[in-house]
Amino acid sequence: MALIVQKFGGTSVADVERIRSVAQRVLATVAAGNQVAVVVSAMAGETDGLVALARELGGEQPDPREYDVLVSTGEQKTVALLAMAMQRLGNPARSFIGAQIGMRTDAAHTRARISSIDTQRLRKVLDEGAVAVIAGFQGVDDHGNITTLGRGGSDTSAVAIAVALDADVCEIYTDVDGVFTSDPRMVPKARKLERISYSEMIEMASLGAKVLQIRSVRFAMRHGVPLHVRSSFNQEEGTWVVPEEEVMEGLFVSGVTYNRDEAKIRLRGVKDLPGVAAHVFTPLSDAGIVVDMIIQNLSQDGSTDITFTASRGDYAQALAIVQEVATAIGASVDGDDSIAKVSIVGLGMKDHAGVASRMFQVLAENGINIQLIATSEIKVSVVIEESHTEAAVQALHAAFLEAGASEPRPEC
Amino acid sequence: MALIVQKFGGTSVADVERIRSVAQRVLATVAAGNQVAVVVSAMAGETDGLVALARELGGEQPDPREYDVLVSTGEQKTVALLAMAMQRLGNPARSFIGAQIGMRTDAAHTRARISSIDTQRLRKVLDEGAVAVIAGFQGVDDHGNITTLGRGGSDTSAVAIAVALDADVCEIYTDVDGVFTSDPRMVPKARKLERISYSEMIEMASLGAKVLQIRSVRFAMRHGVPLHVRSSFNQEEGTWVVPEEEVMEGLFVSGVTYNRDEAKIRLRGVKDLPGVAAHVFTPLSDAGIVVDMIIQNLSQDGSTDITFTASRGDYAQALAIVQEVATAIGASVDGDDSIAKVSIVGLGMKDHAGVASRMFQVLAENGINIQLIATSEIKVSVVIEESHTEAAVQALHAAFLEAGASEPRPEC
Repeated sequence: MALIVQKFGGTSVADVERIRSVAQRVLATVAAGNQVAVVVSAMAGETDGLVALARELGGEQPDPREYDVLVSTGEQKTVALLAMAMQRLGNPARSFIGAQIGMRTDAAHTRARISSIDTQRLRKVLDEGAVAVIAGFQGVDDHGNITTLGRGGSDTSAVAIAVALDADVCEIYTDVDGVFTSDPRMVPKARKLERISYSEMIEMASLGAKVLQIRSVRFAMRHGVPLHVRSSFNQEEGTWVVPEEEVMEGLFVSGVTYNRDEAKIRLRGVKDLPGVAAHVFTPLSDAGIVVDMIIQNLSQDGSTDITFTASRGDYAQALAIVQEVATAIGASVDGDDSIAKVSIVGLGMKDHAGVASRMFQVLAENGINIQLIATSEIKVSVVIEESHTEAAVQALHAAFLEAGASEPRPEC
Repeated sequence: MALIVQKFGGTSVADVERIRSVAQRVLATVAAGNQVAVVVSAMAGETDGLVALARELGGEQPDPREYDVLVSTGEQKTVALLAMAMQRLGNPARSFIGAQIGMRTDAAHTRARISSIDTQRLRKVLDEGAVAVIAGFQGVDDHGNITTLGRGGSDTSAVAIAVALDADVCEIYTDVDGVFTSDPRMVPKARKLERISYSEMIEMASLGAKVLQIRSVRFAMRHGVPLHVRSSFNQEEGTWVVPEEEVMEGLFVSGVTYNRDEAKIRLRGVKDLPGVAAHVFTPLSDAGIVVDMIIQNLSQDGSTDITFTASRGDYAQALAIVQEVATAIGASVDGDDSIAKVSIVGLGMKDHAGVASRMFQVLAENGINIQLIATSEIKVSVVIEESHTEAAVQALHAAFLEAGASEPRPEC
């Protein structure tokens, strides 16, 4: 008998019919002899509706405490309905909101972090043969105020509960079959991965793959909980996200990702003096603009170029801020918001030189100019002109991940 | 500086605009130098929507614990939105759900009874100059399970909070101007009462006046909290519901009420033996049917007639049950579900004979036949043919409550 945590997102519980399907699915796992704790999100559209109400009455920045009181009702609604559906199917079930399982967080409303979970009540219910149905995304601070973990926080709730219960696996149900080597809408030959390491998953998520929330993968990695990303619409095995050592014989490159929500800004003729970078990036950070890549060219004749990327929504504001700095330090500014970031991710890169150069070569063969490059131990990202995104992703997928690729390796 | 509890029902907070109006209204009371705790219901329509979902997934009898988890989200939504609206208007406000103010109840889900309230957090917020915005209708049992007080329970929440805080008054805001001598839609000359005693209010509520929930009036009477029933759409004084001794010089008759949700069933030729009544009413009570009036005629030749009334929705089921009993005891049954109950209520009746006979006389003058009669210290109810309801109510109102009425007395 295994103890399984299953997490279903908003699309999986979008209406009465789907909630009933989720109930059936969960009970099939129970019937197979397992104990199951289910973590659910708000019904699709529910949270957006609540946020719209908050904006109408509380303005653009509604009070964070009250915002959390409001949006947490979404998950509360789902847990009651799902528990009812299971009871109707003849299996005991019991709902829990954050406060009821002592899901303690810090007091950072709208983006709280989990500090502890009291599993006593959950264990009792599970031991009685009932399904525990838990509201994701929410907790309480030390004073009993309702908190939320931020968008996508239900993944994190699920992992935290799996850790606390010492569950055998945390299954993340979604509307795709698992983690793919690339976006199947763009790359017809993209295929589902059987296994991927936590660290690759984190890179892929931060580089544009939307299947899992990064924070939840970090949490799972830290505590060694296996994640299983799978479809709520079929019974197929999905993708297991596991420790590196369990991805023996992993692929050289596990995935090709892209992100079009990118813009770049360049300062030219910056005097190469200590403190210049701080001078540029402090006002951006004060304005809440998250900077992604930062590239500084080697200094020639005492002046240098600094280029950075940020998300496209911040482009205009970032440009205005940097323009001001540039005027003050006698530099000039230009920018471009029709760029994309394309990345290859893979544990194999750690031990094998030449992956980056092969990537550059493939892009060159396809006439795609590289504007910026950033690398880590297990990924290489390049910034290119946005119109080349599709061609770049397809060429890289063909080169690294399809039959006849330069260094094909058996999947584990 | 007074401490005022204000309760707003679902219609008063039905949409964003109305929530904003309620916020303004509450803050006007604050600006006048008062401390205010506000108790709110779910936005109109919200609870019905949740109940419909519960039926779809949980069937006709969804699990009561989960039902409470579900429907309590309605009030939680309102408190957050109302608190945001007040903050936007520049006044601090803080929302509380049942659990957060220690609104302890028994474990009778969907119809829980309040046992205690922890006022420490409320007092702190009020002393800081903030408005406490409290979710009505809900509490928690000793194990932290969410409970609800049943439909209309927000009135009871408000009164209980007023009692716990030792408030100066509990204001119940509604969509009418106060308590009227009769239904203004039926009686154009019906007028608003300035004061009415708790006991009259209880009789009037149980006899068809829908402005206040009986349970909340009983609660207020027991603890001596003055209620002020008033309109949320204007600034007029409404009706004060107060102890009897404060309704000096009260009206002889304070109101004429009617209730069309009535049906009667008669057993004829019942052997007048001990235990016969129990034989008839035990199976009805077992079936959850609430019987209102019971009239047993004097026995002649050893057999008797028993007639009782129940609500119209229970008529068919009650008839079937009684039919069975009748067959067993050799009696016959008939019934009628096109009847109405018309009542006059007034403290004055206690000390003045002749009110009931004047009532019968007025009805006779208008050609209205009386089928059943029931009296208490402060009310007389008659059952008549439903088609006569309007004529009866108008005639009684003219006779007892309009200029030139038989015993006009000054309102206090």
